[in-house]
Amino acid sequence: MSAHENININLLPAGELPLRLGRVVDAMRAGGIQAALIRDNANIYYLTGRVFRGYVYIDAATSAIRYFVRQPNNLHGPGTFRIHKPEQIKEMLVADGVEVPAQVAFDLDAVSASEAIRLAAAFGMPAPGPNASTALRIARSVKTPFEQEKLRASGVKHTEVYRRIPGLYAEGMTDIELQIEIERALRREGCLGLFRMAGNDMELFMANVLTGENADTPSPYDFAMGGAGADPSLPIGANGTLIRPGFPVMVDANGNFNGYMTDMTRCYAPGDINPRAAEVNALSVRICDTLADMMRPGAEAKALYDKALEIATEAGMADYFMGHHQHAGFVGHGLGIEVNELPVIAPRSKAILEAGNVIALEPKFVVPGLGAVGIENTYIVKADGPAEAITTAPTDIVTLR
Amino acid sequence: MSAHENININLLPAGELPLRLGRVVDAMRAGGIQAALIRDNANIYYLTGRVFRGYVYIDAATSAIRYFVRQPNNLHGPGTFRIHKPEQIKEMLVADGVEVPAQVAFDLDAVSASEAIRLAAAFGMPAPGPNASTALRIARSVKTPFEQEKLRASGVKHTEVYRRIPGLYAEGMTDIELQIEIERALRREGCLGLFRMAGNDMELFMANVLTGENADTPSPYDFAMGGAGADPSLPIGANGTLIRPGFPVMVDANGNFNGYMTDMTRCYAPGDINPRAAEVNALSVRICDTLADMMRPGAEAKALYDKALEIATEAGMADYFMGHHQHAGFVGHGLGIEVNELPVIAPRSKAILEAGNVIALEPKFVVPGLGAVGIENTYIVKADGPAEAITTAPTDIVTLR
Repeated sequence: MSAHENININLLPAGELPLRLGRVVDAMRAGGIQAALIRDNANIYYLTGRVFRGYVYIDAATSAIRYFVRQPNNLHGPGTFRIHKPEQIKEMLVADGVEVPAQVAFDLDAVSASEAIRLAAAFGMPAPGPNASTALRIARSVKTPFEQEKLRASGVKHTEVYRRIPGLYAEGMTDIELQIEIERALRREGCLGLFRMAGNDMELFMANVLTGENADTPSPYDFAMGGAGADPSLPIGANGTLIRPGFPVMVDANGNFNGYMTDMTRCYAPGDINPRAAEVNALSVRICDTLADMMRPGAEAKALYDKALEIATEAGMADYFMGHHQHAGFVGHGLGIEVNELPVIAPRSKAILEAGNVIALEPKFVVPGLGAVGIENTYIVKADGPAEAITTAPTDIVTLR
Repeated sequence: MSAHENININLLPAGELPLRLGRVVDAMRAGGIQAALIRDNANIYYLTGRVFRGYVYIDAATSAIRYFVRQPNNLHGPGTFRIHKPEQIKEMLVADGVEVPAQVAFDLDAVSASEAIRLAAAFGMPAPGPNASTALRIARSVKTPFEQEKLRASGVKHTEVYRRIPGLYAEGMTDIELQIEIERALRREGCLGLFRMAGNDMELFMANVLTGENADTPSPYDFAMGGAGADPSLPIGANGTLIRPGFPVMVDANGNFNGYMTDMTRCYAPGDINPRAAEVNALSVRICDTLADMMRPGAEAKALYDKALEIATEAGMADYFMGHHQHAGFVGHGLGIEVNELPVIAPRSKAILEAGNVIALEPKFVVPGLGAVGIENTYIVKADGPAEAITTAPTDIVTLR
């Protein structure tokens, strides 16, 4: 079959769509949503295993799913409709026997205000109504066994790239030069090169390499660490600082090898390992290990954050925890199709952990005169026992040769 | 001064802010907008020369600009206010003596519906009101002399990378493998690695390399060319096709070396140049040259598109113009801070060209049995004479050695 012939819109393996749709419909009903029209690429990928330009309509009463496709022009299958504009959707639904409720929810956290206003008009609503983003976010926060396998596979490749980092370094490199080589190694291992992220004010590089005082430059983005960046148009991360003995190099490279994302951070030492850096790194590892053991169904996200801060405080490191001149307000975050999913491990979070949550923990420190130190791992919350780390590179600081 | 100390919020060179603000205020007045609260990173970069997390407030009556900053925590200067949430802004404006109108415009094309609804409430509006996106888009469509210099500088580096492409190829490479080496070369030349783009359903790689039949796979994205991509989660561009003699390799790599973007495409031949590919490439060059001569102040964007299609049709190539199984609906687009700005060179465009427009022309063909062929250049529309090409790599198909 040639690539331009008709192909089925649903790419998910057998049994997967009912699982996911069931979670979405449950969350819709819990939120009082009768019907949702989904437009966000991340949500469409969740519901079909592919991305298309168009909309997915979900009727909570019947658990029926329909696809309204603008592009590409070769998708078909049950419940698939070709459209050239969203104004056609309501009429097509009615013609298909659907009772369209007065209020249809859109994924308002992802869709632009202009588009939401247009969609509301297309459904005869005076203004955008209920927000479907929350239901999708809740559904996606517990990964199915198939999703967990994709995440584990990403973790294996991600870990393999980290093993190669010492061999990518050459004396005299700047942070940006090392970052470029790490990005290439990621790509050659199969990393797709782009990373989905919720929130249209966030902008994410393939990797962030931080060394020296640059780590303490505050950034506009809601990431764990800062950095001035190479240009004021993208003020985050590496800024051309020379990698020098005595200053650890923090590598936070993203892994997206199959549509699901893992997050991992490790520190490296050009030359001898600075004993103070080793001590701070060990503190970060200890926080990860303690929290991984606590990350079980029923655990409070808030309690996890409090424990991390408590360990940092006991070590006299509270001032440097999650930043120094500017502090990030979390120590971990869910991830999967996007880098920032639920639950968030933060002081005011109300989340209660569930089996199947996938969470990156990143207890990091910015120490004056030293720079950024700490690790990050991605974990799957299990029904029993401590969380399973799926990013498994050695946690000690590794010497760059 | 250490990086965490207070630094001025306005990074634009002297005289630049009044020029840009003047254009924005003119467009606001023309659109009946009294005041705008701007949140989009691209618009904030236009107005300050940097990105921060927060808002820019513009009062059209007085042409005054104020900055409301959530992050980073080290920006100061005249008119700068620190906030932790947008609900503080209105009160601060009133305390500063500003008469806040009943309707404040937000950049509704960029801000999520959720955020727009929240902002409206913060200003006591029952719902989001006027759309500031159009005014900003119009203002940004004519580049200042300083912006044109940044674009020319990007074009120089971009062109330098294209000169190196033949040396990056090795026999037996796939499209993805060549793309990875081109991305590395771009990064080593100073490319920042990320590209801003309007529209939250668009996702853009650093480069797209297309060869063989893959070029005819329709994609969900509104780009000139398609391609299956390496994974259904990001279905665009290279898909692992082996680069083979007889099939041209189209390289569309983005240049972002300083916050302003240039666009360029060239074709390469592994081994002898296929005569049919050379012919189609020459047709693309001819369309570019013809349109570059037409791109003068007062020219209609629509007439430019019509001329391109006319030349393609006369050559018997209308069926393959801008795609084959799926056609893109444009032949060129404005660019600058984002890859897709005004004007759009499309059949139903109402745009009239102005001096200072920066436009990428990309008349491309997808030919069965051959693949994607054509070039792309970025041009500055001049007050007199034909448009100035600022991406200047040789336009003929270049042999990969």
